[in-house]
Amino acid sequence: MSSKRVYFFGDGTADGNATMKNLLGGKGANLAEMTSLDIPVPPGFTITTEMCIEYQRTRVLSDELKNEVKAALAKVEAIMEKKFDNPADPLLFSVRSGARVSMPGMMDTVLNLGLNDETVLGLAAISGNERFSYDSYRRLVQMYGDVVMGVDGHTLEHAIDAIKAARGFELDTELSVDDLKELIATMKGIIKKETGNDFPTDPFEQLWGGVEAVFKSWNVERAIEYRRINHIPGDWGTAVNCQAMVFGNMGETSATGVAFTRDPSSGENYFYGEFLVNAQGEDVVAGTRTPQQLNNHGRDLLPAGNVAKDLATLEELMPESYKALDAIRTRLENHYKDMQDIEFTIQDNRLWMLQTRGGKRTGVAAIRVAAEMEKEGMVTSDEALLLVEPDHLDQLLHDQIDPDAELNVLGTGLPASPGAAQGEVVFSAQDAVTMSEAGKKVVLVRRETSPEDIAGMNVAEGILTSRGGMTSHAAVVARGMGKPCVAGCGDLMVDTNAGVMAIGGKEFKAGDMVTINGTNGSVIDGAPNLVPPHMDDPNLATIMDWADATRRLKVRTNADSPHDAQQAREFGAEGIGLCRTEHMFFGEDRILKMRQMILAENEAERREALVVIKPMQQDDFEGIFEAMDTLPVTIRLLDPPLHEFLPHDAAGQQTVADEMGVSLEVITQKVDSLHEENPMLGHRGCRLGLIYPEIYEMQVEAIIAAAVAVKTKGIDVRPEIMIPLTGTQRELGDLREMAVRIADGIIAAAKSDVKYLVGTMIEIPRAALMADKMAEVADFFSFGTNDLTQMTFGYSRDDAAVFLGEYVARGILPSDPFQQLDQSGVGQLVEMACVKGRKTNPDIHLGICGEHGGDPSSVSFCHKVGLDYVSCSPFRVPIARLAAAQVVVREKIEAGN
Amino acid sequence: MSSKRVYFFGDGTADGNATMKNLLGGKGANLAEMTSLDIPVPPGFTITTEMCIEYQRTRVLSDELKNEVKAALAKVEAIMEKKFDNPADPLLFSVRSGARVSMPGMMDTVLNLGLNDETVLGLAAISGNERFSYDSYRRLVQMYGDVVMGVDGHTLEHAIDAIKAARGFELDTELSVDDLKELIATMKGIIKKETGNDFPTDPFEQLWGGVEAVFKSWNVERAIEYRRINHIPGDWGTAVNCQAMVFGNMGETSATGVAFTRDPSSGENYFYGEFLVNAQGEDVVAGTRTPQQLNNHGRDLLPAGNVAKDLATLEELMPESYKALDAIRTRLENHYKDMQDIEFTIQDNRLWMLQTRGGKRTGVAAIRVAAEMEKEGMVTSDEALLLVEPDHLDQLLHDQIDPDAELNVLGTGLPASPGAAQGEVVFSAQDAVTMSEAGKKVVLVRRETSPEDIAGMNVAEGILTSRGGMTSHAAVVARGMGKPCVAGCGDLMVDTNAGVMAIGGKEFKAGDMVTINGTNGSVIDGAPNLVPPHMDDPNLATIMDWADATRRLKVRTNADSPHDAQQAREFGAEGIGLCRTEHMFFGEDRILKMRQMILAENEAERREALVVIKPMQQDDFEGIFEAMDTLPVTIRLLDPPLHEFLPHDAAGQQTVADEMGVSLEVITQKVDSLHEENPMLGHRGCRLGLIYPEIYEMQVEAIIAAAVAVKTKGIDVRPEIMIPLTGTQRELGDLREMAVRIADGIIAAAKSDVKYLVGTMIEIPRAALMADKMAEVADFFSFGTNDLTQMTFGYSRDDAAVFLGEYVARGILPSDPFQQLDQSGVGQLVEMACVKGRKTNPDIHLGICGEHGGDPSSVSFCHKVGLDYVSCSPFRVPIARLAAAQVVVREKIEAGN
Repeated sequence: MSSKRVYFFGDGTADGNATMKNLLGGKGANLAEMTSLDIPVPPGFTITTEMCIEYQRTRVLSDELKNEVKAALAKVEAIMEKKFDNPADPLLFSVRSGARVSMPGMMDTVLNLGLNDETVLGLAAISGNERFSYDSYRRLVQMYGDVVMGVDGHTLEHAIDAIKAARGFELDTELSVDDLKELIATMKGIIKKETGNDFPTDPFEQLWGGVEAVFKSWNVERAIEYRRINHIPGDWGTAVNCQAMVFGNMGETSATGVAFTRDPSSGENYFYGEFLVNAQGEDVVAGTRTPQQLNNHGRDLLPAGNVAKDLATLEELMPESYKALDAIRTRLENHYKDMQDIEFTIQDNRLWMLQTRGGKRTGVAAIRVAAEMEKEGMVTSDEALLLVEPDHLDQLLHDQIDPDAELNVLGTGLPASPGAAQGEVVFSAQDAVTMSEAGKKVVLVRRETSPEDIAGMNVAEGILTSRGGMTSHAAVVARGMGKPCVAGCGDLMVDTNAGVMAIGGKEFKAGDMVTINGTNGSVIDGAPNLVPPHMDDPNLATIMDWADATRRLKVRTNADSPHDAQQAREFGAEGIGLCRTEHMFFGEDRILKMRQMILAENEAERREALVVIKPMQQDDFEGIFEAMDTLPVTIRLLDPPLHEFLPHDAAGQQTVADEMGVSLEVITQKVDSLHEENPMLGHRGCRLGLIYPEIYEMQVEAIIAAAVAVKTKGIDVRPEIMIPLTGTQRELGDLREMAVRIADGIIAAAKSDVKYLVGTMIEIPRAALMADKMAEVADFFSFGTNDLTQMTFGYSRDDAAVFLGEYVARGILPSDPFQQLDQSGVGQLVEMACVKGRKTNPDIHLGICGEHGGDPSSVSFCHKVGLDYVSCSPFRVPIARLAAAQVVVREKIEAGN
Repeated sequence: MSSKRVYFFGDGTADGNATMKNLLGGKGANLAEMTSLDIPVPPGFTITTEMCIEYQRTRVLSDELKNEVKAALAKVEAIMEKKFDNPADPLLFSVRSGARVSMPGMMDTVLNLGLNDETVLGLAAISGNERFSYDSYRRLVQMYGDVVMGVDGHTLEHAIDAIKAARGFELDTELSVDDLKELIATMKGIIKKETGNDFPTDPFEQLWGGVEAVFKSWNVERAIEYRRINHIPGDWGTAVNCQAMVFGNMGETSATGVAFTRDPSSGENYFYGEFLVNAQGEDVVAGTRTPQQLNNHGRDLLPAGNVAKDLATLEELMPESYKALDAIRTRLENHYKDMQDIEFTIQDNRLWMLQTRGGKRTGVAAIRVAAEMEKEGMVTSDEALLLVEPDHLDQLLHDQIDPDAELNVLGTGLPASPGAAQGEVVFSAQDAVTMSEAGKKVVLVRRETSPEDIAGMNVAEGILTSRGGMTSHAAVVARGMGKPCVAGCGDLMVDTNAGVMAIGGKEFKAGDMVTINGTNGSVIDGAPNLVPPHMDDPNLATIMDWADATRRLKVRTNADSPHDAQQAREFGAEGIGLCRTEHMFFGEDRILKMRQMILAENEAERREALVVIKPMQQDDFEGIFEAMDTLPVTIRLLDPPLHEFLPHDAAGQQTVADEMGVSLEVITQKVDSLHEENPMLGHRGCRLGLIYPEIYEMQVEAIIAAAVAVKTKGIDVRPEIMIPLTGTQRELGDLREMAVRIADGIIAAAKSDVKYLVGTMIEIPRAALMADKMAEVADFFSFGTNDLTQMTFGYSRDDAAVFLGEYVARGILPSDPFQQLDQSGVGQLVEMACVKGRKTNPDIHLGICGEHGGDPSSVSFCHKVGLDYVSCSPFRVPIARLAAAQVVVREKIEAGN
């Protein structure tokens, strides 16, 4: 807790600086920084984010806070040589929110604080512009009534429309001073009627109300929703920035505008921006007047027919101010070493800066800005790496929804696999296949998916489910396929039997068009325009080369087929960290044998079925080994409970009974006997391998035989056998002995010199707690953070969606722990296991193969705890490579290098 | 690993002693100890248990081992002044197994090693008894063929029957020397035919075979099964004891016998035992001759008509030997400070001791021996406490199966709740109620039970299930009721629809008699005699008084009703550690309202239903508070997922639909929408409390209103509100705030001064990891070790039975972790949480309310990590009190006090 509540800035000196974003918010920190750089900034002060958090608890502004505000305000008065409540020459203030990160349009602003029936006269006299003065007063009453006092904004807006209609006017600017006076009175009447309270005339009362309004706006619904989507913790709070007002609406020598120091869409290095003469900031946003381009180059780039092509630029209209602004642009870029998003106001030919911050940009722009700034010598390649956000890469690798498209968002689920997809709704995997064969693009909609849906998922453009979390089957498989997926969409009701889904008040039948945005989780009506990916942008290669040269962590991929393995390799994967073997059993040619194996009465019958499956498995492994020549391939032995391979519905069971030539009863009895109350905690993983050793024996035989076979073809093969779900040393030790016995037997018989490793997933909390013992019998640990998260929190990934969304929204959890690794809880176990494991086995290899392997903050954690590699789905490999480099750069910066 | 493989003893000196049971087994350690005490023991040596474990891996006896054996054997030869392979005067050896704890009849023995066609002549010459010599040879060939060479014992036995039939003999003793010679030849022939190998004539070859046979016997099926039932780890191994043979069968001056230093059934202090003249040990066991009583007092106690009443006693027949034996009896009791179980042989009027060990005894005997030994001044009260095993108390509190009854054990499940129960089989709770009302005793048989079965469980004598583990619903509820239960009986097939069960090849219909033994998990055909409990034995009170004076740990109980609370209080409970509130909702008067609450469309409707439930809850709490006047009562807010309160079968759903006046579809849709893949990891506990705050609010209101109400009646009420399933500080913090706000409001409004605590279960691994944070907002932690075990291991208590049994049998786990707390894994979390919790909140109360609270080894662990109390089901309270005292005594001993 900081002892200081209010941070002053003005006239070349500031209490704060750009590093204090947590306390002062982004806006406040940068206003202080610009002030210290002697860039012209209207003086003011920032109330800290801590005061916001305090306010959420106390719901009042403390006397201590008010006193500090008054002291800072007095300094501003001294600089401006005006008094806040001087009727003759009033100092006016703006109040703006400013959180640690930008939350555009989410929180509130009030301008012109300090005006009342008396000071408006002083302002008119001093400015010599009575209309400006009353218009400013009108704006205050309207904004204050809406934002602070809670009157419906439309009611106040309607008052303006009414007077314009009565006078026969088109534009606000046609309103006379008397019209404005009448309008102000009308609005005050509305406020009184709606709230029971008068519009406050005391400037300080106005100020406190404005500050409280900003604090309250932190916890309005849209702000909470925005934070939920963007993983912003609720306990960060917002700062409040109070600044002396400067006016862009004092006549033709005044203006206001917003600009980016480079083009935020393409990344091109030119001064990009818009402005309006004689306007306040809200007018630029409101869209009632057409903004003009900042300079002639920007105007030249406008497409033919654009209205602004015929309007003068700032470069033409106010060349001195433009020159000054362009100089500040260069200073800011050089100072911040990043592309900036700025706001400015020109009051009577004098330039004032109101904001600077890192500019939001597209993926394409991000890599171009980074690459070019390095070429320009403005940043080092290390610094350039930090200019690209991992999410930018997602844009380059997947279709995106056109940012300019009008969207009818019907609901939101979890952003389970990034990119946009659109197509006709289908409700079954079979329909997906049929429609796709008929040349249609489809989006597969299910309550949840299961391994039986794989074929349908494979042909769908994207996947939408109403249940399940970030590590549900749909999410994991979709990410593996690089296919957009929105999962666990609670707004969505799916009735697959009836063939309908309903969302956001609209009902869809099979064949209706829907679009999903797996990057933010939204479900959109119809088919808005999509923007294609940019995988071959040369700037991308530049950035990735730097990343690879910088990072220590290796990046592997989770891939179950030669195709996925090949794709991941193209994305830069340095091995396979998780090859699941269970998907291999769902092929049409093998599921029957798998089921025979499961239905077998005894070990001999099971072995008989396994004999048929083995060469198929060996084939799979040979393909993957060949694709990953010279790179390690970690193969996990069978993990899911056996009942996953049997159908659970009557029709499916009848089909299996017919296929296998047994009675339906035999199938239903087996399904029944295998039923588990909590399959996630049931008979799976190494527990299967110990009770039915023949299954794992077959798999080890297939792996090693495949390795021996490809080695004779000259492939440099590096198999790693991974035992899942171990929790005791004996489980791992017994199975390791089995694997080594079989593998060594095959290798010796073939006179081969294949080398292999045997290790385990660490995904049971007990395995982490006992890691010293586990490491004694493991060549490697691979953290299965999906299951580790499930068990450490006691959350079922399939069921937790019903409360997890609410938990994140209410700040009970900072983020979905299936998406971002819970570093304080689950992370403790990971760290403990690393330390204990290395103690008894200093050579142990450590990696992570949970879905967190592709999440940037989790990658950073993995680097810090000293893992050797992360493994993630193929399309996340570039992101992991970048994130792994960024953490190294940040460490260098922290170390002062 | 000990560097010594073989421990010699003989002639007053021994390499080992009684403390070395782990290495030498119980028998070997005590033979060494007796030797050092100068008690006459035939000299010999013990091969360590470590060699047994080595043998399981290598399957050969190493040269190093053989050399050490030969060296020790040479020392025996020196003492006995005979040579092992001297044909003229052979030294013979016995080989006996001896594990760390006694496993009676589980492992193998071979006597008379060293005899062959040559040495038998020498023995005959030296002993002057040719018949004895050939009979000994016959015994060796028979035993060796069976035990070492694996010939079916019946085949060899049949050879004896054949020759007796041919000769027209009744008794073995009628066989002449020539008959025996013929018999030996016949048996050798059988051995050769059956195994392809000759009976070995080389004494050393015989010896190695005998040693290997003992090692192998450690892992035969019956030994594995015995260990599984008795929780003996598979990696303990057995030692092998080789001793110079002494012979009780050398004529009328020889004898052999077994004895207890006190009566093992009643505990009475007299020398209790039996013997046979001219016999070897196996004859006493075989039952072909009637053993005689050791002394006249024992003979007097025999019931009229007993054959031995007319036989002479050792006291009469061999008064000198008897006197010597009685003196040894006293020395041994004084030395070991415990009742001993001894074996002796008298060879030609010379007494030899072959074994001493702590004697197995009944519960009644245990407390009598302990109490009387203290009175006699032989032990202190501390030492006396260690003479009673916690399981002995179970015998005193429950019906037991008559130890003399002939049992037809059909199968075995988990010993889920101790005691014996018998009655007619019923397959539904409803039938149990109906039959019970008709005056019948019933045993309720289910695949698994659910809360809907409570009424039936309540009237049943005992409960038998085919599924579920030690913490399944059936097990937990049965223990709470003090009712015998065998759970998860894999041998049992239940078809409730058809109304049949099958076990051990027998089919039962409703109404057939069955008996279950919840103490060892066996299921028994019919109705063997039962022995009633002994709760009011005055010795019990003495022991419990000592325990209470000694222990530091408090003992609370898990109780959900005033009746259970009262009963537990009588058993010495010092509070309620876990009062579950969910069972309260299953009463006929309230389940309807509960279901209305669940089916409510919105919060208002839910609150409406809760308003009706609240006074019922308050009533429950008042009853419990009154029963527990002056003692703390920890009440857990609602924990199970809501779907547990709805029926899952079509008929049940129709009933609910009718009751509630809604369509069946409404019910099925709700059941469907509440369905969870893994309910254990789903929407339950505090997650319910946060999403539906009105439920917990109602419960807190009911608790505090009840406390205020009983306080006005003069009850000293100490409510503790427990929030279940928390995993983050915010979950607990938010709900604590809610509870405090409501509680303080009610207390203030009533001008009461009720004091209460708010704390949490620690049952999610993350809660333990974050215990420092949790403790900041908790007055107490109560370790819910059932769920903590589930999540730390990733084992579902409902599903794990299919592999847990096998895991324990194979030594992958030392014991069922739902029965005995896994100290190395789960225990780490408990310990960590204690340390971290006390760091941020030094005043925090710490307890355990999982089922482990009644398990002696777990109680000991709880004491050591510094918990304040354990809480267990009412019938386990005395056991926990004793266990809590025993750990203190053991600590004193370790500290050398």
